[in-house]
Amino acid sequence: MINDTMYARGAESSVIREIFTYANERKAQIGAENVFDFSLGNPSVPAPDEVRQSIERSLKLLPEQVHGYTPAPGAPEVRTAVAESLNRRFGTNYTMADVFMTVGAAASVSCTLGAVTCPGDEVIVIAPYFPEYRVWIETAGAVCIEVLADQETFQVDPEAVAAAITDRTAAVIIDSPNNPTGAVYTRESLEKLVDVLERANAEREARLGHPQPIVLISDEPYREITYGAEVPWVPSLYEHTVVCYSYSKSLSLPGERVGWVLVPQVSEGARRVMTAVAGTARSLGFVCAPSLFQRVVMDCVDVPSDVAAYARNRDLLTQALSQMGYTYVEPGGAFYLWVRALEPDAEAFCERARVYELLPVPSNSFGVEGWVRVGYCVAPEVIERSLPAWKRLAEDYGL
Amino acid sequence: MINDTMYARGAESSVIREIFTYANERKAQIGAENVFDFSLGNPSVPAPDEVRQSIERSLKLLPEQVHGYTPAPGAPEVRTAVAESLNRRFGTNYTMADVFMTVGAAASVSCTLGAVTCPGDEVIVIAPYFPEYRVWIETAGAVCIEVLADQETFQVDPEAVAAAITDRTAAVIIDSPNNPTGAVYTRESLEKLVDVLERANAEREARLGHPQPIVLISDEPYREITYGAEVPWVPSLYEHTVVCYSYSKSLSLPGERVGWVLVPQVSEGARRVMTAVAGTARSLGFVCAPSLFQRVVMDCVDVPSDVAAYARNRDLLTQALSQMGYTYVEPGGAFYLWVRALEPDAEAFCERARVYELLPVPSNSFGVEGWVRVGYCVAPEVIERSLPAWKRLAEDYGL
Repeated sequence: MINDTMYARGAESSVIREIFTYANERKAQIGAENVFDFSLGNPSVPAPDEVRQSIERSLKLLPEQVHGYTPAPGAPEVRTAVAESLNRRFGTNYTMADVFMTVGAAASVSCTLGAVTCPGDEVIVIAPYFPEYRVWIETAGAVCIEVLADQETFQVDPEAVAAAITDRTAAVIIDSPNNPTGAVYTRESLEKLVDVLERANAEREARLGHPQPIVLISDEPYREITYGAEVPWVPSLYEHTVVCYSYSKSLSLPGERVGWVLVPQVSEGARRVMTAVAGTARSLGFVCAPSLFQRVVMDCVDVPSDVAAYARNRDLLTQALSQMGYTYVEPGGAFYLWVRALEPDAEAFCERARVYELLPVPSNSFGVEGWVRVGYCVAPEVIERSLPAWKRLAEDYGL
Repeated sequence: MINDTMYARGAESSVIREIFTYANERKAQIGAENVFDFSLGNPSVPAPDEVRQSIERSLKLLPEQVHGYTPAPGAPEVRTAVAESLNRRFGTNYTMADVFMTVGAAASVSCTLGAVTCPGDEVIVIAPYFPEYRVWIETAGAVCIEVLADQETFQVDPEAVAAAITDRTAAVIIDSPNNPTGAVYTRESLEKLVDVLERANAEREARLGHPQPIVLISDEPYREITYGAEVPWVPSLYEHTVVCYSYSKSLSLPGERVGWVLVPQVSEGARRVMTAVAGTARSLGFVCAPSLFQRVVMDCVDVPSDVAAYARNRDLLTQALSQMGYTYVEPGGAFYLWVRALEPDAEAFCERARVYELLPVPSNSFGVEGWVRVGYCVAPEVIERSLPAWKRLAEDYGL
């Protein structure tokens, strides 16, 4: 019998995809250079040449060494390379046992949610949030609880999280550098969040007579895309952290679907979480992460991301919009600018922007009102050519 | 809260993996040439050179053309190439709308099960069967109903399927050429199965007042690995067929995770199934099939599988075992020999075989008693060197 939930999820088109489709149609009508598509999060920086070099090296090996099944958690040498890279960067002592290679960050988060929630459990997300979190939480049988970020800074609001915690809270998902706001959570705000979680854990343990800690899922696909801000290493702040990572943005490999889950194996509970991640991956039909790109990860694990191009776009866009009178959150990372809509209804604002061929994403898609996301992972010419349109839009609103 | 079901699925080691691990330990102890590991289904034939050529061509393109996100159902030109290849082979009229690219056959089956079942629905599998079917069926919230194959020929037994159909039967999974038996379902037995399904559909429609057809999931990773047997094209026999395919075996790319789901878009119901497949893929965290290997599929869609090596192994093994007095199912396809254990308890038989360093897989893993699976996707020397051991094992049992 056709599953209505799955049908609905297939039928509901993502707003972002809809805008992208509209952009392409409009480009065909009036010329690509006249349409300013800020909808997608597809990296505009190409994959570094080290990726090509790595693939060429693999092609010199025997095909069965390159294209064969790896163990479900990934090839041991790849997991070791990831662990050692983290150790160099964060002064940790991880080994391959802490790392489970995945089919990208979507799989990382989906498998982690399956592992750390039971049906009816609650998972807190910080709004605005990446909309697929809700889908994956509900697929795991859990309930998505939205908690507003601080509406000025878009830092996580520890008191709001504290107020939302119940006995059914299994996990909190954070995403810093943040999609959609570009905010990078400061060490101070993370420490306050950790305080809240540890207090809740202690209260719960006193009540239940046994520990049942809240898991902090730190989804970090944008970790490498920052403009000077520190991105604290969350497992060093909170024991019950699971890090979800992807090479989609850092190596510009979004289509290749490769990432990892890190569960530091510091306790029996953590070992159980890792086993449950493996069980979820198996249950959902993930057999192993793509084997050739596991080798690419091993070879490129320390290749720096080319952030300069995004930084130039960010400066260009923020300076111009600021002069025109727009307000926005100063982006510390990722490649999104979170701009306040010039009227309360973000969708109406986007309709008006469309008159000038400007295509940001309304904040409603991310669970809040009154803002738009401007993805600046585009060619700089797109930003330059769009500035007169942004200007006219501001003037329409009397700025 | 850690999910016990997922934990258990991660903790329970697959019998096949356990044997494989034992084999490696034993090889370290007594030398690789003295251990006869017939446990895995990892193709021993390397990926064809066309795969390497395709990757090298892609590396000459812009990285963003190769490694970027594709649409969720796959790149249009790849889906078209798959559809046209099927049309050339089966006289069909498929288009890209009928094809959804997946992260391998595991994802194909998992996404199809999520699409065509509701919680509590029943899915029939033909025992012996690939053990992960049960995991994916139960992950979808459905119930796995085992129906024995004909225990002489290991063809599907249409009357047994008929007896197992209830109002909750949502789907039947078939897998031909079969893992683990190597049987290829004949046109005749498939036609009888289709008769059973159509009769059940008609009765159900009369009772319900609206159609609610049973979906036939044809899982075909071994379609190309055959020894002269016809593998009928199931959608030409039964309208409500969903084909699940993978390039793991045909192109020897098991680690790269690329395959497809075909849902011929012949009715409103079929269109709903395809939409639900897309919704399930999204819900489980599959974003798109790996993009570089989608291009490999496009380039290699008609590259023939090198079956000759498997055919030689098959002949070598069957001739020798037959002379020693073993009985087995004549394999029409795949690279497994289904051999009758020489005592009723297949696990006890495998223990005895282990004395001679012979490592087949007991049939219990596949839901039946009294047989073993011998994977002959190995180097021919492994088979040759194993023959004295098989002989001594037979003599132990008085053959």
